[in-house]
Amino acid sequence: MYILQLAMDSNSDILKRFGDRIRDYRKKNNMSQEELAEKARLHRTYIGMIERAEKNITLINIEKVANALEINLSEIFNDL
Amino acid sequence: MYILQLAMDSNSDILKRFGDRIRDYRKKNNMSQEELAEKARLHRTYIGMIERAEKNITLINIEKVANALEINLSEIFNDL
Repeated sequence: MYILQLAMDSNSDILKRFGDRIRDYRKKNNMSQEELAEKARLHRTYIGMIERAEKNITLINIEKVANALEINLSEIFNDL
Repeated sequence: MYILQLAMDSNSDILKRFGDRIRDYRKKNNMSQEELAEKARLHRTYIGMIERAEKNITLINIEKVANALEINLSEIFNDL
């Protein structure tokens, strides 16, 4: 069971780091999760799930969130 | 129908740009699609689908591919 947990941990680590990064940028923009979701044309609960690393976000949605935060993709992943 | 197509085009554009970027890095590393898939622990046909923009890749798999290509995430998205 330990190995499975290990594999899951290493997978979800990137989701956690990405979620924290989105939260940082969102707060810098003084946006609520709902405002960011609306601007990105995503469901209003989606941003919360991303920030809590509950969703394995897809590339199309990564770009939508980056556009809504007005940053480019390499900025989001800088030193991630 | 035109608007739907437009929305789909703009969505799939990032998939196309990402697929082309992965193909460039893979060829720089003189790897076949199957070799990259194996190193990234992904199905052997998966890399071909990514390169042809047929898959909306998830963040966990983006990291697997980046690790297998031995580049960091911001390099993959640099000017994408």
